[in-house]
Amino acid sequence: MGENVDSEIIEHHVEEEVEVEEVEEEKGTRSHAASGSSFLGSVTPSDREGHSGTQSSHRLLAYSDALISIIATVMILPVAHTKMENNEELRESVQLLLTTKIAVYLMTFLIVTVAWAAHIRLFQVIVRIDDCLALLNLACMMLITFLPYTFSLMAAFPENILGLLLFCGCVMVMGVIQSGIVLYAFSRPFLLNEQIQISENQTFYKHHILKVIMRVPLMCFFASIFSFIFFQLSYVLLAIVIFLPYISQSLKWCRSKAIGQEQESPDSMLFYTYLPNEPLSKDRVEAFSDGVYAIVATLLILDICEDNVPDPAVVQKQFAGSLVAALRVYGPEYLAYFGSFATVGLLWFAHHSLFLHVTKTTRFMGLLNTFSLACVGGLPLAYQLTHEFPPDSRNELEAIQISCVIIFFAGGFQLAIWVVALHGERETLHPYVRYGGREHAFMFAKLSLYPCVALGTFFLTCVLSRFSAPIFHLMEITVPFAFLVLRLLVRVGLASLRMIFCPDRNGAAEEADDEARAPLSALVA
Amino acid sequence: MGENVDSEIIEHHVEEEVEVEEVEEEKGTRSHAASGSSFLGSVTPSDREGHSGTQSSHRLLAYSDALISIIATVMILPVAHTKMENNEELRESVQLLLTTKIAVYLMTFLIVTVAWAAHIRLFQVIVRIDDCLALLNLACMMLITFLPYTFSLMAAFPENILGLLLFCGCVMVMGVIQSGIVLYAFSRPFLLNEQIQISENQTFYKHHILKVIMRVPLMCFFASIFSFIFFQLSYVLLAIVIFLPYISQSLKWCRSKAIGQEQESPDSMLFYTYLPNEPLSKDRVEAFSDGVYAIVATLLILDICEDNVPDPAVVQKQFAGSLVAALRVYGPEYLAYFGSFATVGLLWFAHHSLFLHVTKTTRFMGLLNTFSLACVGGLPLAYQLTHEFPPDSRNELEAIQISCVIIFFAGGFQLAIWVVALHGERETLHPYVRYGGREHAFMFAKLSLYPCVALGTFFLTCVLSRFSAPIFHLMEITVPFAFLVLRLLVRVGLASLRMIFCPDRNGAAEEADDEARAPLSALVA
Repeated sequence: MGENVDSEIIEHHVEEEVEVEEVEEEKGTRSHAASGSSFLGSVTPSDREGHSGTQSSHRLLAYSDALISIIATVMILPVAHTKMENNEELRESVQLLLTTKIAVYLMTFLIVTVAWAAHIRLFQVIVRIDDCLALLNLACMMLITFLPYTFSLMAAFPENILGLLLFCGCVMVMGVIQSGIVLYAFSRPFLLNEQIQISENQTFYKHHILKVIMRVPLMCFFASIFSFIFFQLSYVLLAIVIFLPYISQSLKWCRSKAIGQEQESPDSMLFYTYLPNEPLSKDRVEAFSDGVYAIVATLLILDICEDNVPDPAVVQKQFAGSLVAALRVYGPEYLAYFGSFATVGLLWFAHHSLFLHVTKTTRFMGLLNTFSLACVGGLPLAYQLTHEFPPDSRNELEAIQISCVIIFFAGGFQLAIWVVALHGERETLHPYVRYGGREHAFMFAKLSLYPCVALGTFFLTCVLSRFSAPIFHLMEITVPFAFLVLRLLVRVGLASLRMIFCPDRNGAAEEADDEARAPLSALVA
Repeated sequence: MGENVDSEIIEHHVEEEVEVEEVEEEKGTRSHAASGSSFLGSVTPSDREGHSGTQSSHRLLAYSDALISIIATVMILPVAHTKMENNEELRESVQLLLTTKIAVYLMTFLIVTVAWAAHIRLFQVIVRIDDCLALLNLACMMLITFLPYTFSLMAAFPENILGLLLFCGCVMVMGVIQSGIVLYAFSRPFLLNEQIQISENQTFYKHHILKVIMRVPLMCFFASIFSFIFFQLSYVLLAIVIFLPYISQSLKWCRSKAIGQEQESPDSMLFYTYLPNEPLSKDRVEAFSDGVYAIVATLLILDICEDNVPDPAVVQKQFAGSLVAALRVYGPEYLAYFGSFATVGLLWFAHHSLFLHVTKTTRFMGLLNTFSLACVGGLPLAYQLTHEFPPDSRNELEAIQISCVIIFFAGGFQLAIWVVALHGERETLHPYVRYGGREHAFMFAKLSLYPCVALGTFFLTCVLSRFSAPIFHLMEITVPFAFLVLRLLVRVGLASLRMIFCPDRNGAAEEADDEARAPLSALVA
């Protein structure tokens, strides 16, 4: 299986080199170009025209990922811009927020991610594009960017069916466009995945994929019809349609894992299976995550650039012309910005280190990644809250604790991705970081640093509630340096563990001591 | 030269395959891994430790590009959120905007792009990273994200030196960090570009690069000292420091081109030359452009999601509970959103098609791309303006004409990139789109569609000023379909040109007729 993954990587490069070769051949005779790469030999003459405009889909997907990651995080803005009153209790206002805006944010994030996953599935089947597909995809993107708005209409007016109808309309049009994309791609087989291209069951594949794609729009059609009769039923229908495949398949997968009889998926179900270990393009998971981290890291500076440039007249009147005094008022905002940028940046760093050693991403890892990113999206808001209340107030303490909880979950889900990856480590991980790999302990330390620090800060602020703000700021400042010297720390930790548990270097307790075991496990593998 | 470019592409893949091979070898014996790839043979044993944490810099750069593209476009937000009064003349308010906010936006875009270009230069020398470099780079990014704010402080309080000092401070700290990155990378040569790695003049390279990097921070240091004495001089100093290298080198290049005696740059000046034809990483230009296009395309939906969900109480009171009536008020906003999304998306599509056929990006092409992107950033604002004024007013007409001008320049600079690329086509372009290539006319049509349409709309609205809004909307709707059938249109156009100018197929006027000439020119090349 490990070899399989590696060969996939090489195949990818070979495919792109074929393009380069095609260019070289283009210099020769033009008639030769249409059958330039071996697997295009079966293309009929009428298809040559289309082939001349064929392009690698890489950049189209990168742009789509950027768009979708922005849209996924957009609903955090109404949450972040809710003004807190100093005199009311934070607990109450947070309760209010939780029930509406945060719920809308999380649901939007989930729904947009579901649409994104469908987009990945589609373009794992279609690996090359032409102008027509690029334009159809842009139309699809425009509909996805409109989903958050329909969703917030639904949340604001749950009794009014307009939001529901708009949502269903968007999903249905997207379904039609996606079906169009599939039909178009199957009519020009050189656009398809090589596996389908050489398969004899192309028609079967086409029908299977169309069936899966049209399932959701069809249910949305029924939901929109029902909404005129009994609209509560429509909401239930939508919830079922979007999440049932995942839940049922996850349950089925868990059961098969528990019983132990793992049935191999037949060739016909290689795509569109909804199995938790169905592969998900690693490039796209990374691109989407990068987009979310980048947006979230800059959310606060966007606000600062727009709102925190004082008016010259006000500075003249209220601060006797002293700009420094005027800016000192915004001090907490700057602090929140630096804190959230550093935290988001370091969480990105941990994510980056993790995915550097992941060789295959599964659907389940993608789901955990989504949860982690949804938490990251809440971070700037949490950091902003910590500085909005008077020092030593109950509100400030709670805001700090909420920040710790969010950091804990953001880091915790990253750790969970790693644990899941370790579960099928021969398929999903680099040898370096597998059990016994020489980077294993270091990676574990990197991923558990933030959850541990957040948990520690949380309990410290519970005990020493008077010093909560200094503790939190100390944490903010220390963590980047902790990451810098982490390798040293891990080595010292391992050495001391070795000293304590097995001074004669023969004990069995040192699970983390990889340096010694690495060559051994390498030989075994 | 063409072969040179191709071999570069292949080299890139080979490099990544080396990584895969390293993994394979890692399974064997560990002692072998340190000298896994041939060009690492010279690494001393003490460096092996560092090598174990070495990573491809690809994702770090993608994340940096995403961050920088967001920051470059952030100053359009204060412009977009300026409320227009219906009773005042648009000309006046636009004058006001032009003098302050738009100038700040454009200057910020330029300065952030300069910082981004410096980042590209640095990471064209350093091609692999480790944890320490990743963290140093994050610190650098944080300082770049702070630049727009210091710049808007300077614009709001030109007489106050605080903004200037903050700006200089950021640049100086960035210079120190970048020097740290260079020193760190040169102490671990396996992180460097292969060309420098095998070179014997490593010390020379190091000093040259450090000298170039430290030039700007040093000048900023002097500027911040001068600011206490005579602050106007500091601004002049900053302007010189940032733009002089480009201007002087461009002039030098133009002169050498005009006289004809093109001197080959010696090997020692391959990096950090500031020559207009110095290569600029194509991947990064694409990633940065994707980021800007994605942000700009979603700018309006961000506002819509935040501001245009009506309050249930207001709907009950003002619209007798009719949500449809309440949403109808926002109609112009939706229209502006769809219009700007479609236009930005199609400009992205043209950009994507262009860069698909560009094999090497030069500094000058990067500069033109920056201008194009800066125009694209203004598009949502322009579209929003077209719908904010009462129909048939003078304001509406001017807003529509401004939109046309912006679209014209955004598309025009893209066309300029292509013209520049055609100038050195053997180095920079795919054979398909060179003079005589079979995609040449099609690419020309694709890139000139938006400038032509914008120009046409502009003049039509001048003549038929009463119908300006319908003309503009018709343009919005037609252009996507024009792109869809463009290939057909070009073929029809070429055929009719052939019919008119040379019915006997032997004339010399048919410059655009590539179909017939392609095999001939291929044989000549």
